[in-house]
Amino acid sequence: MSERYDLAIIGSGPAGLSAALNAKIRKKKFIIFGTNELSAKLTKAEKINNYLGFYGKSGAEIRDEFVKHLDFMDISIKEEKINNIYAMGDYFALMVNEKMYEATSIILATGVNFGKPFKGEEEFLGKGVGYCATCDAPLYKDKVVTIIAYNKHEEAEVNFLSTIASKVYYLPMYKEKVDVNESVEIIKDIPLEIIGDKKVNKLILKNSEIETDGIFILRDSVAPGQLVPGLKMDGSHIEVDKKMKTNLKGCFAAGDIVGVPYQYIKAAGEGNIAALSAVSYIDEVSKK
Amino acid sequence: MSERYDLAIIGSGPAGLSAALNAKIRKKKFIIFGTNELSAKLTKAEKINNYLGFYGKSGAEIRDEFVKHLDFMDISIKEEKINNIYAMGDYFALMVNEKMYEATSIILATGVNFGKPFKGEEEFLGKGVGYCATCDAPLYKDKVVTIIAYNKHEEAEVNFLSTIASKVYYLPMYKEKVDVNESVEIIKDIPLEIIGDKKVNKLILKNSEIETDGIFILRDSVAPGQLVPGLKMDGSHIEVDKKMKTNLKGCFAAGDIVGVPYQYIKAAGEGNIAALSAVSYIDEVSKK
Ligand SMILES: Cc1cc2nc3c(=O)[nH]c(=O)nc-3n(C[C@H](O)[C@H](O)[C@H](O)COP(=O)(O)OP(=O)(O)OC[C@H]3O[C@@H](n4cnc5c(N)ncnc54)[C@H](O)[C@@H]3O)c2cc1C
Ligand SMILES: Cc1cc2nc3c(=O)[nH]c(=O)nc-3n(C[C@H](O)[C@H](O)[C@H](O)COP(=O)(O)OP(=O)(O)OC[C@H]3O[C@@H](n4cnc5c(N)ncnc54)[C@H](O)[C@@H]3O)c2cc1C
Repeated sequence: MSERYDLAIIGSGPAGLSAALNAKIRKKKFIIFGTNELSAKLTKAEKINNYLGFYGKSGAEIRDEFVKHLDFMDISIKEEKINNIYAMGDYFALMVNEKMYEATSIILATGVNFGKPFKGEEEFLGKGVGYCATCDAPLYKDKVVTIIAYNKHEEAEVNFLSTIASKVYYLPMYKEKVDVNESVEIIKDIPLEIIGDKKVNKLILKNSEIETDGIFILRDSVAPGQLVPGLKMDGSHIEVDKKMKTNLKGCFAAGDIVGVPYQYIKAAGEGNIAALSAVSYIDEVSKK
Repeated sequence: MSERYDLAIIGSGPAGLSAALNAKIRKKKFIIFGTNELSAKLTKAEKINNYLGFYGKSGAEIRDEFVKHLDFMDISIKEEKINNIYAMGDYFALMVNEKMYEATSIILATGVNFGKPFKGEEEFLGKGVGYCATCDAPLYKDKVVTIIAYNKHEEAEVNFLSTIASKVYYLPMYKEKVDVNESVEIIKDIPLEIIGDKKVNKLILKNSEIETDGIFILRDSVAPGQLVPGLKMDGSHIEVDKKMKTNLKGCFAAGDIVGVPYQYIKAAGEGNIAALSAVSYIDEVSKK
């Protein structure tokens, strides 16, 4: 049986980090998932002047201050991407490829999706379109697969798939140098539309087309309704009350994902609230 | 005629300061009222570890960082206390004794500490003196606690504390009939002074003295409604929506005054939201 955490925090932006500080101070057994870079939205900001206490600093410099704070509190980030979360009644099951984590409560702090879905993406979701390459890899043994990725981290998934599929086309949507297995065909183009019959059979790009059996779209964050089935949304955001509670018992949310304005300190403030609400929830259920 | 500001911010704690940064960045003509000390609640904190980016610092040290941020942004605080605010239709009139300021919109960020403090109250704030009995209850397990309350509503807190503390003395400062647990000792007297060494140890009353480990002062909640007649409350807090809008057009609120949890970064996050909402409001009315 996997060990049970009191709290799992998904996301390492300001919302998730702020939640982690409070979980630590309240001595809860927690885990935080994300990246050691913390948040692309943080590191990409040129200059931040509206985070009270920091001025004239770049996002990367503020990120460094956050990292020092985490080190000081002895908090480390689990560099894993959660693919799915299932509400099991008195706990949540968090899936990372074939691995599973268990937690009594969760805080969703995954930020907002950068990308609008591609034409055809929603129509063919589960019919050749997927978001977790390693999860679905067995389905594509000796088949042709196309991967669209927004983060260099995903290259590991590409390489893994290249050992299973007969052919992998790779569309890197990031600026860093691409470094994947030789057998992978790298395509620099812009995806426009996903086409198929009962299942996907083609990806239309701006300058060409690819015949393919499957398409994986690896964005930095997954739509929350997809990440946690049953979660109530308010438009494209997770619906929460003032205590950052969602409709699912024990599930809280904070940051960009719960609504505008998209701002660092608003996200951090909400992470603080969500953590204290989760702490109350944990204490309450542990009394039973 | 007095000059008209786009925005007046009342309060110089984290909520008001964060609002001011954003008003400045958005180039609004604003004024912020408070003290150059910023906030007693900030300077009195011994050690703050849950404000993302700052660790191991005292409240006074973080205050100094905030002051530097204000200087960098060329923001200065008007050291005046607002006595009353009247909604005049398309603007607000802010009264400071005989002086009057005018502003198109306002942000209330006055915190939750109302009423004239008792002698010794500010000195021992955080050293045995508190304002939220349920928040700090765990600190008083098996200890002697005194509660001074200005509203019958607080009896629930008194009863709650009586299940944790070894002894609760209760000073009801209201006229209604008192109805609390039998174990609570009701004292009808007038508090004069709080006394202690490093921490509180005694409350001096007009006709007696109480030896106590902690003192909670639960002041009457109508204060913000008194400050701004017509303001809609939610219990002892100002009622706001997600955008930090109150029931009065052009009036926003943020920080402790809009509800628990009482936390720095929550207050700062809300100040950010309130400022952006006020900016939208100002832009909208100026178009007319
Ligand atoms: C260029 C730029 C400049 C900006 N400038 C400012 C500014 O000056 N001031 C300001 O206040 N705001 C600014 N913002 C907005 C600010 O970046 C966001 O409001 C803030 O980052 C939101 O924080 P968050 O914690 O909600 O989400 P994010 O910062 O987006 O963090 C989400 C995290 O969750 C992780 N994650 C997502 N899904 C999963 C999963 N399934 N498993 C594990 N981890 C996952 C992501 O990798 C990421 O680390 C700017 C944004 C950009 C893009
Ligand atoms: C001892 C202590 C320790 C704490 N430790 C922590 C901690 O570790 N972490 C944490 O997150 N929180 C902590 N808190 C809570 C934190 O202090 C508050 O949540 C926070 O200060 C609220 O910010 P605010 O801006 O809403 O109000 P405040 O900080 O209370 O500021 C309100 C300001 O408004 C001014 N004001 C009020 N009325 C008027 C008026 N009519 N005219 C002009 N100005 C006015 C006041 O003078 C004050 O400057 C602590 C509190 C105390 C007392």
